[in-house]
Amino acid sequence: MSSSFGNNLRISIFGESHGKAIGVSAEGFPAGETVDMEELFAFMKRRAPGNGRLVTQRKETDEPIFLSGLLSDRLTGFPLTAIIENKDTRSGDYSGFEERPRPGHADYTAQLRYGGHADMRGGGHFSGRLTAPLCIAGGIAKQILSRRGIEVGAHLYSVRGIKDTAYDSVGLTAEKLLAAGQKPFPVNEDSAGESMTAEIEKARAEMDSVGGIVECAVLNVPAGLGDPMFDGLENQLARVLFGIPAVKGVEFGAGFAAAESRGSENNDPFAVDDGRVVTTTNCHGGALGGITTGMPVLFRVAFKPTPSIGRPQRTVNLRTMEEETLEIKGRHDPCIALRAVPCVEAAAALVVLDMLLK
Amino acid sequence: MSSSFGNNLRISIFGESHGKAIGVSAEGFPAGETVDMEELFAFMKRRAPGNGRLVTQRKETDEPIFLSGLLSDRLTGFPLTAIIENKDTRSGDYSGFEERPRPGHADYTAQLRYGGHADMRGGGHFSGRLTAPLCIAGGIAKQILSRRGIEVGAHLYSVRGIKDTAYDSVGLTAEKLLAAGQKPFPVNEDSAGESMTAEIEKARAEMDSVGGIVECAVLNVPAGLGDPMFDGLENQLARVLFGIPAVKGVEFGAGFAAAESRGSENNDPFAVDDGRVVTTTNCHGGALGGITTGMPVLFRVAFKPTPSIGRPQRTVNLRTMEEETLEIKGRHDPCIALRAVPCVEAAAALVVLDMLLK
Amino acid sequence: MSSSFGNNLRISIFGESHGKAIGVSAEGFPAGETVDMEELFAFMKRRAPGNGRLVTQRKETDEPIFLSGLLSDRLTGFPLTAIIENKDTRSGDYSGFEERPRPGHADYTAQLRYGGHADMRGGGHFSGRLTAPLCIAGGIAKQILSRRGIEVGAHLYSVRGIKDTAYDSVGLTAEKLLAAGQKPFPVNEDSAGESMTAEIEKARAEMDSVGGIVECAVLNVPAGLGDPMFDGLENQLARVLFGIPAVKGVEFGAGFAAAESRGSENNDPFAVDDGRVVTTTNCHGGALGGITTGMPVLFRVAFKPTPSIGRPQRTVNLRTMEEETLEIKGRHDPCIALRAVPCVEAAAALVVLDMLLK
Amino acid sequence: MSSSFGNNLRISIFGESHGKAIGVSAEGFPAGETVDMEELFAFMKRRAPGNGRLVTQRKETDEPIFLSGLLSDRLTGFPLTAIIENKDTRSGDYSGFEERPRPGHADYTAQLRYGGHADMRGGGHFSGRLTAPLCIAGGIAKQILSRRGIEVGAHLYSVRGIKDTAYDSVGLTAEKLLAAGQKPFPVNEDSAGESMTAEIEKARAEMDSVGGIVECAVLNVPAGLGDPMFDGLENQLARVLFGIPAVKGVEFGAGFAAAESRGSENNDPFAVDDGRVVTTTNCHGGALGGITTGMPVLFRVAFKPTPSIGRPQRTVNLRTMEEETLEIKGRHDPCIALRAVPCVEAAAALVVLDMLLK
Repeated sequence: MSSSFGNNLRISIFGESHGKAIGVSAEGFPAGETVDMEELFAFMKRRAPGNGRLVTQRKETDEPIFLSGLLSDRLTGFPLTAIIENKDTRSGDYSGFEERPRPGHADYTAQLRYGGHADMRGGGHFSGRLTAPLCIAGGIAKQILSRRGIEVGAHLYSVRGIKDTAYDSVGLTAEKLLAAGQKPFPVNEDSAGESMTAEIEKARAEMDSVGGIVECAVLNVPAGLGDPMFDGLENQLARVLFGIPAVKGVEFGAGFAAAESRGSENNDPFAVDDGRVVTTTNCHGGALGGITTGMPVLFRVAFKPTPSIGRPQRTVNLRTMEEETLEIKGRHDPCIALRAVPCVEAAAALVVLDMLLK
Repeated sequence: MSSSFGNNLRISIFGESHGKAIGVSAEGFPAGETVDMEELFAFMKRRAPGNGRLVTQRKETDEPIFLSGLLSDRLTGFPLTAIIENKDTRSGDYSGFEERPRPGHADYTAQLRYGGHADMRGGGHFSGRLTAPLCIAGGIAKQILSRRGIEVGAHLYSVRGIKDTAYDSVGLTAEKLLAAGQKPFPVNEDSAGESMTAEIEKARAEMDSVGGIVECAVLNVPAGLGDPMFDGLENQLARVLFGIPAVKGVEFGAGFAAAESRGSENNDPFAVDDGRVVTTTNCHGGALGGITTGMPVLFRVAFKPTPSIGRPQRTVNLRTMEEETLEIKGRHDPCIALRAVPCVEAAAALVVLDMLLK
Repeated sequence: MSSSFGNNLRISIFGESHGKAIGVSAEGFPAGETVDMEELFAFMKRRAPGNGRLVTQRKETDEPIFLSGLLSDRLTGFPLTAIIENKDTRSGDYSGFEERPRPGHADYTAQLRYGGHADMRGGGHFSGRLTAPLCIAGGIAKQILSRRGIEVGAHLYSVRGIKDTAYDSVGLTAEKLLAAGQKPFPVNEDSAGESMTAEIEKARAEMDSVGGIVECAVLNVPAGLGDPMFDGLENQLARVLFGIPAVKGVEFGAGFAAAESRGSENNDPFAVDDGRVVTTTNCHGGALGGITTGMPVLFRVAFKPTPSIGRPQRTVNLRTMEEETLEIKGRHDPCIALRAVPCVEAAAALVVLDMLLK
Repeated sequence: MSSSFGNNLRISIFGESHGKAIGVSAEGFPAGETVDMEELFAFMKRRAPGNGRLVTQRKETDEPIFLSGLLSDRLTGFPLTAIIENKDTRSGDYSGFEERPRPGHADYTAQLRYGGHADMRGGGHFSGRLTAPLCIAGGIAKQILSRRGIEVGAHLYSVRGIKDTAYDSVGLTAEKLLAAGQKPFPVNEDSAGESMTAEIEKARAEMDSVGGIVECAVLNVPAGLGDPMFDGLENQLARVLFGIPAVKGVEFGAGFAAAESRGSENNDPFAVDDGRVVTTTNCHGGALGGITTGMPVLFRVAFKPTPSIGRPQRTVNLRTMEEETLEIKGRHDPCIALRAVPCVEAAAALVVLDMLLK
């Protein structure tokens, strides 16, 4: 179904942006694992709005309430359901988009698909806010993986072409992987972060927005996970990642650059390191034939600029079928890629845990 | 399951490269549709080996034998099963890869995953040859779509950075879409094709290989198809496309370039054209929120260079755990992206038909 | 996954009996349908406890709170999530069953499966209470079907062998189908109901319980729904019905009696009635080859006696591995089949609606 | 999808009775297991026609041809595909049933569902012949289970009310379980078999048919397998069993008799036997809450009489919409339950292996 994914760990997201609550129901988490609530809240806070000028000023605590599947911070093995109540919603800011759809948003297509019945206030079920429940489940998955030595991290790799230092695809350590996530601005190189900040600020000042790329890695994934053809690591990750709003591209290892290279450059030679088979380069990004090699899993996700911008835009009044000019009010992130960093980690953690549970 | 995909049209691929047969079982094709066998064979021939110097010299007719689901060229509505018998197989060329895995191939990971039981001769179930059954089902899907006015086409967009003219993302016509597929070398601009050919030839001569990008478009997809979150157009397409061997990246519309742009550039304004809502640009690539807009569906797929190259490469002897040098013999495509063009079309046709059948 | 079912309408049940809440998440309900809350609550009340001496005295309003998918009593088309908060729970009554499992209950097997992590207070996720969320979704499905002229009804067919009048499998009218559901004791023939009541009373007085059979019918199901082999009407219904606690058998049409008959008796002759193809008898129960015929869908579900009885029973102390005598306190239904009547209707409505939505 | 089932072991059946071939594709069999072909053929022979007067005289070897997934009698871990070619088909015997549907058959409903496109010669995809591929996969599953000490057996429990001795639900041994399957007429008590034979003969002589019940047991299933609610042992088994043509009812343990009993009779007391927790009776049939207890899994399946009988029957000419009398020619089993015995075993083996592979 459309709002669910996973084979052994099944994640279902529900809720509309301005409804009573949004949430997640997760079936398949292993019984007996504990959830460190403080760590989970800290993870969720990384995607939460209200953290400064660069993100939307909408104030939300995004505090999950657990309805089932948890008994005193321990997973029962039954379906885990957690919700976040919607509180600070100003529906007025969003009214009228059914009639005059915002360019780059799902207003128009939702209309086509649901015949005007969808609750599209605040973006409805298409809202970026729906990534909060993804982060609840993903944050728990991260903790379970971490106890098995598997670490998931991501950083803002670029903003409108301004690039952070990439992860070292071979020698990446857990410390370096997790560093960006602990900073207010999630980059490896703080000077790059400053340039990105300036770029985002400039866009915001000009009532515009900017796109960006998130790079994510998973360390210590056991070799031999995944299945061939349509259930390999890349297949499952790509399917979930394109479920995060604004994602336009996904690439693994060398990715699109591999298409510009030769086999003699792109093939990763096998070698022995400390009795273990490794590759001396990592253009493959951690999986061959969909099955993990034991090398770092590495991928990048392209986010388009936030479609909600203050500048006047052309749209069509669907009632009159006249072309009109639209001015969007309200609170919007000038760079959605920034808050998407933990969402990408959440997706990666859930997919890797699913594969591990097979 | 790993070798299957689809919700309303379920495709299951089976077979090993050097086994008795490879094939496909497809459940959900609408009853009563006819299959034009000549057209299907012509489509399959586009990915078949043996078409000149640029592709592997392995000779195979790739002629499908239909076992079920078809009664005198008409689909019965029951599961369709078609096989291709494996004939021209020289297993000798592939022997020893279980022990000394080829860089960039699944030899090593298959070993880990199947403990040496997998029939990996010729790449086994991981072989690019398994895209032939995908093309049987995809070729039928293309015919069914075409009868409804929906056309699927693709071209070789680039080879190691040498670029063909891109599709016009707004004004693309069926004629222009399908032109490349009718040529021996599937490009829009023949001069680009000549440069690519030279590049591939050069790599082959140097016992090397090159990567490339395939661009695909689908015209006249009805607006309003697809589901939000994890079952949208992009999610389903990406999951299937990463099932084609050697794919390292997938992007829709502006794709990774969107990450370098601003919202005011990347948002596609709505307009009215002949009483229909359209967008005046098509950075979104045919879907917003996972649901089709009615604009051309447009995406690009990055293929790595063929990993099988004649040059000596470093590997590990898994029995002795010694590093060794490997020289691969046998017949290999110097540019896998070239033969992948119809495979990308097949994947697109199957995913769009699946969404249409909902 | 284990707590989910459905292809086009996907139902996921969550919650533990003594956790914070139980609930349902349903994906695929058609957008725009209204929910008559009063009717829904009346339907849910039919399975609710606290309705007299024959059922458990646990007091619960079972009032659903809708978290998503509903905007002013109208379905949005996005996932519908509704919960029931757990209030009147006396965990003390249930303590100790992990150590000394109740015969006929899932206490022992849950222990094996979840290693003691499951929240088994009150039966946990295995509790009959989990049928309440099933009835939320099922009650909504019943309303949607009813607007299309399709009616679902059930009655208590037998209690420990005491039989009610069966439905007329050919001439059943909506009025007769729905009559039992409107009575305090859901039978066709009130005198049978009185005998059943006496039987249940007697069992209760003797600290025992009794089994029973529920008969269910669905009228006006369009002919031609369902799929062959493993996704026919019977397959899907049986899978869901065995998910209602205490179900031990399911039969369609003549059911087990068909095994005692001859083909000349059991075959239903085709005839023409008012321009429509009908069968003059209905031993098949509404589907042939898994596909509906348009005749009433008819099936029976056998419920075992409530396993929780006041009498001393033999069990094993799993800690000491000593055999012991167990005396169960607390509030229990002496005949679970009685309250299961609307649950069977809910299951039938959800399965038929799922098939209809294809 | 309709012709597939299974979570970890996915079985897809394809083919039409009078098409080129019927077959099965199975994904998830563990790599490295061997297939004893002689044993498999012996198992398949138990359901094959042509074994005497009591079954149809259609001659078929039913010899499976393995296309993939098998390398020298060893499973590769990739999808296993096996087919049986259709040879001895007399389509003439079946012509005209699209126009004048046979009572009790899927002729009419297939017409409704597939609009006349289905290849319904010989029953098409609805034919009992499609249980042959089920037996290929099931026979392999039986071998894999047997190597782990798990034995699956079944016998013809009754024919039109004439009963064989039931299995001992507590003390059943592998020897007694498997005895019936080795006899020409699969019963525990040969004298019962003789009475059944006479009953079947009588029906055949009178151009009629009879129904019957198959009882099946699985020994040594590990305790703790299965999931709660909709993926328990009963749910999965019931879903698959109703996929065998002519099944009208399924019951576990005491089944429908439990509905006539009291809790004090039906609850199975726990006890300790040789350091293991057991139940002293087995009314539950091997699973509580959907999860196995370690006691014998025990269930019964009701088969209706073969609908194809020689006697004149009433039907409707769908072209003219006139009622007519139909006389069915051709070769038919007078008691379908007889040949269904190994099919029930196959279904049980596949479901138990699927649960074991989780």
